Amino acid sequence: MRKEDFSSPMDLERFQITDSFWKKEIDLIRETVIPYQWEALNDRIPEANPSYCMHNFKVAARQNKARLVDRDYVPPVHSVNGFCVWPENPNKLEDRFYGFVFQDSDFAKWIESVAYSLQQHPDPELEKTADEAIEIVCQAQREDGYLDTFYIINDISKRFTNLRDHHELYCLGHLIEGAVAYYKATGKDKLLNAARRYAECVAAHLGSEEGKKPGYPGHEIAEMALARLYEVTGDDSYLKLGLYFINERGQRPYYFDAEHPPKSDEVENLRYQYHQAHLPVREQQEALGHAVRAVYLYSGMADFARLTGDEGLKEACEKLWDDITQRKMYITGGIGGTHIGEAFSFPYDLPNDTAYAETCASIGMVFFTRRMLEIEADSRYADIMERELYNGVLSGMALDGTSFFYVNPLEVLPEACHKDERKEHVKPVRQKWFGCACCPPNLARVISSVGAYAVTEKEDTLYIHQYIGGTIKKQIGEKEAVIRMDSGFPWDGRVRIQVEYDGEEEFTLALRIPQWCEEYQIQGIENAETKLEKGYLYLKQKWNGSVLEIDFPMETRLFDANQQVREDIGKVALMRGPLVYCLEEADNGKNLHLLKINPQTEFSTEQMDIAGEQVTAVCGAGWKQRETKEDSLYRQYTAAAYEEVEVKWIPYYAWANRGEGEMQVWSRV
Amino acid sequence: MRKEDFSSPMDLERFQITDSFWKKEIDLIRETVIPYQWEALNDRIPEANPSYCMHNFKVAARQNKARLVDRDYVPPVHSVNGFCVWPENPNKLEDRFYGFVFQDSDFAKWIESVAYSLQQHPDPELEKTADEAIEIVCQAQREDGYLDTFYIINDISKRFTNLRDHHELYCLGHLIEGAVAYYKATGKDKLLNAARRYAECVAAHLGSEEGKKPGYPGHEIAEMALARLYEVTGDDSYLKLGLYFINERGQRPYYFDAEHPPKSDEVENLRYQYHQAHLPVREQQEALGHAVRAVYLYSGMADFARLTGDEGLKEACEKLWDDITQRKMYITGGIGGTHIGEAFSFPYDLPNDTAYAETCASIGMVFFTRRMLEIEADSRYADIMERELYNGVLSGMALDGTSFFYVNPLEVLPEACHKDERKEHVKPVRQKWFGCACCPPNLARVISSVGAYAVTEKEDTLYIHQYIGGTIKKQIGEKEAVIRMDSGFPWDGRVRIQVEYDGEEEFTLALRIPQWCEEYQIQGIENAETKLEKGYLYLKQKWNGSVLEIDFPMETRLFDANQQVREDIGKVALMRGPLVYCLEEADNGKNLHLLKINPQTEFSTEQMDIAGEQVTAVCGAGWKQRETKEDSLYRQYTAAAYEEVEVKWIPYYAWANRGEGEMQVWSRV
Repeated sequence: MRKEDFSSPMDLERFQITDSFWKKEIDLIRETVIPYQWEALNDRIPEANPSYCMHNFKVAARQNKARLVDRDYVPPVHSVNGFCVWPENPNKLEDRFYGFVFQDSDFAKWIESVAYSLQQHPDPELEKTADEAIEIVCQAQREDGYLDTFYIINDISKRFTNLRDHHELYCLGHLIEGAVAYYKATGKDKLLNAARRYAECVAAHLGSEEGKKPGYPGHEIAEMALARLYEVTGDDSYLKLGLYFINERGQRPYYFDAEHPPKSDEVENLRYQYHQAHLPVREQQEALGHAVRAVYLYSGMADFARLTGDEGLKEACEKLWDDITQRKMYITGGIGGTHIGEAFSFPYDLPNDTAYAETCASIGMVFFTRRMLEIEADSRYADIMERELYNGVLSGMALDGTSFFYVNPLEVLPEACHKDERKEHVKPVRQKWFGCACCPPNLARVISSVGAYAVTEKEDTLYIHQYIGGTIKKQIGEKEAVIRMDSGFPWDGRVRIQVEYDGEEEFTLALRIPQWCEEYQIQGIENAETKLEKGYLYLKQKWNGSVLEIDFPMETRLFDANQQVREDIGKVALMRGPLVYCLEEADNGKNLHLLKINPQTEFSTEQMDIAGEQVTAVCGAGWKQRETKEDSLYRQYTAAAYEEVEVKWIPYYAWANRGEGEMQVWSRV
Repeated sequence: MRKEDFSSPMDLERFQITDSFWKKEIDLIRETVIPYQWEALNDRIPEANPSYCMHNFKVAARQNKARLVDRDYVPPVHSVNGFCVWPENPNKLEDRFYGFVFQDSDFAKWIESVAYSLQQHPDPELEKTADEAIEIVCQAQREDGYLDTFYIINDISKRFTNLRDHHELYCLGHLIEGAVAYYKATGKDKLLNAARRYAECVAAHLGSEEGKKPGYPGHEIAEMALARLYEVTGDDSYLKLGLYFINERGQRPYYFDAEHPPKSDEVENLRYQYHQAHLPVREQQEALGHAVRAVYLYSGMADFARLTGDEGLKEACEKLWDDITQRKMYITGGIGGTHIGEAFSFPYDLPNDTAYAETCASIGMVFFTRRMLEIEADSRYADIMERELYNGVLSGMALDGTSFFYVNPLEVLPEACHKDERKEHVKPVRQKWFGCACCPPNLARVISSVGAYAVTEKEDTLYIHQYIGGTIKKQIGEKEAVIRMDSGFPWDGRVRIQVEYDGEEEFTLALRIPQWCEEYQIQGIENAETKLEKGYLYLKQKWNGSVLEIDFPMETRLFDANQQVREDIGKVALMRGPLVYCLEEADNGKNLHLLKINPQTEFSTEQMDIAGEQVTAVCGAGWKQRETKEDSLYRQYTAAAYEEVEVKWIPYYAWANRGEGEMQVWSRV
């Protein structure tokens, strides 16, 4: 690991996105999702589960105020065992905590999206709403910095007694992420200071020093958040706390055993693997347990590898990366093959119809990839980032931005979702909002900050990992270069990059060559010193008004899976450029399982409208097994009769936007 | 429905089985399973879960004795909410109830097997053990006839308050079955009288009359048992009680609601379907809910249709039969596509690797088929009975009779059973004994009485449904005909039937023509009046020393499934005669999913030894996808390379007798 290779994400003000594909998504977040979420945080969406998030902050704030005014004030003490609390009468809330224990994070994710949005699109009205919300949140904070409403409201004396399940450190992590983003967007440090004080409160209680509990998060995220807080503030104490969490995880005796003595019939492995606490992190080689927790941890590990130069951490990250991407990832980028524990299943166990493939897990993979790219520009990371962003992440949100998938299956028969309790987690259409609403706000924050993933920089180099159109301002020496990128992605591989710079210095543009592109063309590099390394084309020259015209031809290709993936044997999936495609009943009729793809077919493309969005569909020849009116369940084998049909694929991210119907990514060949 | 068509099963003394296939199974039950079970009932098998069955009877008997001696005796009252109770210290049992609430039925199933075994093979020692056990059981009975140790020991005042879950009527049903069998085998009526008194006690508490509870069984079986008790005793009151149970089920208001008020978030359908209590039984057209419960109910319905001439009941049975056999049955005869509720899934949902296909459910199908055959000799019933007996039933027991499957999957990857919690119910090898030990004793009772399924009779006709070799004594007029049958089933379709009769009367042999047999040959029918009806060949003549030589050629055939069975699309299964075959890793190596069957192959057979048992294996040509050492999870599609291989199938019932390995019934074609 060489420090001189490291790059950093761009500040979002310095990358104004104009891309026809992503701008629309970002606008959707700003115009639809952020206002919708604010209503959700305030329990004002009639048809959706209430969040109770702002309610809880207000109750905690009122209790604090009562405490300051009246020294004898004793807050009501409730049981703190449960994982969630629902009101008896939803129309008449009492002054107590409701919802899941991690409900505070709903606000933190929302404020983070707001911050990114403000960086791309200033909005004083929204900023005012945000400031008011921050005011309430800060009033809920205790004098010693503690800020988790579940324990503030219920029984502060019990705090830090159930780190495994009660998400105090998860809420800390999200609070930091939101606070840092809001500070960078607005320069206002009220929430940042609150987050710092909460982090300091945690550091005062947890750690390896005498008198502290040797605990660490039951749901990771604080690790990467503390790394970020350290980078923004320069305060070593956050680095120390985050690194302590990383190093302590999985040490023996298991900390979680002190909180939750193991029962005799519990399987040790499952007990600790779920939280990635089965081994010290540097010894972990297989991605195990709850998939979101896992990739959040690995993201933090990558941060600390970079910040501390720890080769052992980096190697663990690489092994875990390989395990996921070579053995445990759906072609859509989805991770988590089993709904039991929302977890990684065993290698190559990737069932299409019962997949978990949580939207948040794909988002977590985007976090992990960006951090690996910061350490080393290797296109294998950026290729996966692309796969996630255009497929596993975007599929989580309806095209109109008002409904969401938690679970992203690769094959759906609606009847099975309704009647088969084993597929209870698989929904055939997106849902409005969830009580446990991790995915929608996570989508909002990743989409509104997509520029921070697309591009990273170091002093003399701009890395373009994703071809997302926009205007990038990069400081080169004393002057600022302005790089304008136009991109046809994901429909068309033509990219135009114009660089305005009136300084004298040479600098480098590093362009990722997508893995799916065998031959590309680039014009305008006559004067550049070129180098191809780890999937990046490095172009070094004096740039002034130079224009690059690049073409990454997007061919339609069929893919098969490793033969150990039993569910996909004898089947193919289709990709075109960065997009994974799927079949829907709306285009291909019922009984998608009766289709066979002709691998020799010449594919054609077709523009089509799905719920108001223009997408490129792919058509090709195939066969459909003739439907019989056979009554008998089993009969002597006869070769099936097929008729020729045209098969039509649409992008996977756009599925389930035309009502309920069958969907299939892997088809027989 | 015409009474003159009805036939009845043979008494087992009158059908001495000598069949080379079934005699071995029956001997295994007698020599191994029955003694093993007795040890299990007495908690003397160290490596298996204790049953606590005899312990509970003894505790109840002691309490009764104390009660008789000391009028002030008050039995200890325990909570009766639980579904099972385990001792704190298994080595020091207290005088209380342990095990599942239905543990009494372990004894009843055991005594039933003992009875059948004694009919085929008198054994004074075994009969003495049985008599001693009966003595204990009868001592446990309360003065008013009540006989369920869970409530006798725990709190008699709570009896009949949880019919849905607490199996008192299930235990009644099994007690009757065992008592009737033992009475018919030995002529001893002690247990029969106990069963009658318990039935009368139940009738005094449950029924539509004023002052009684309008309840019915949560787990069916009492219905068919009461029909049998009525047929043995001629006492109408049992007919009345059983018919009341049949008629009351599913009436509104739902009886189970009175016991268990519904919760607001419960799905009404699932709540009642599980117990087949969603509709009055005559209106039920779809097989739903817990599969064993369902087919036990349908068996009782068929009994009462026959006993009362109720056409509505018969029609419901036929519709339910069609629904199972045309939409919800594995090719092995297994029923119950989902482990959630051990239940029928939606039509055509027959996953191979997560199948439930409980051994007891296949046994229940045997009960159902025999009862339908009693009403009407139609070979579609006997064909399914054959499929069940030779496949779904026998697969439940290891070839050595000491371990058992509860669940009978059609595809197994051992790694998945160990690592995938969604397949926790699927075991790659049979288990010793279960705490909830329904299947092993159920296997014992059905195998030891297989003669009662193979053959039924009416005055002038002997129906041969299954070709199981043995000597049948049939009364014809004043004299007895002796029919000796030799059969090569299931390996060879040659059957020889010799009929000795020195009377003057004509009578009829009705031989089932198996569905799998397109052309058969029969010799020795020159003098017979022949008729082919509903799959039976009726041969009427004067029989004296006549010999029939029949050949049902057993060809090897490939089968495919209805195209709505998504799991089997593009796949074939292999049958030879009555046997379903499967592939095992032991013969075909790992990665069975990489095999493709050549449907044009000429199959050959081969004798082989599996765990000491001679079976006929089938060999044919196929291809195996070449194994690659590909690291990548997805790659551009290339047609797979195959190598020619010989594929070897073994009978499904014999799988998992050579250690742990992959198994597959449906293979790609």
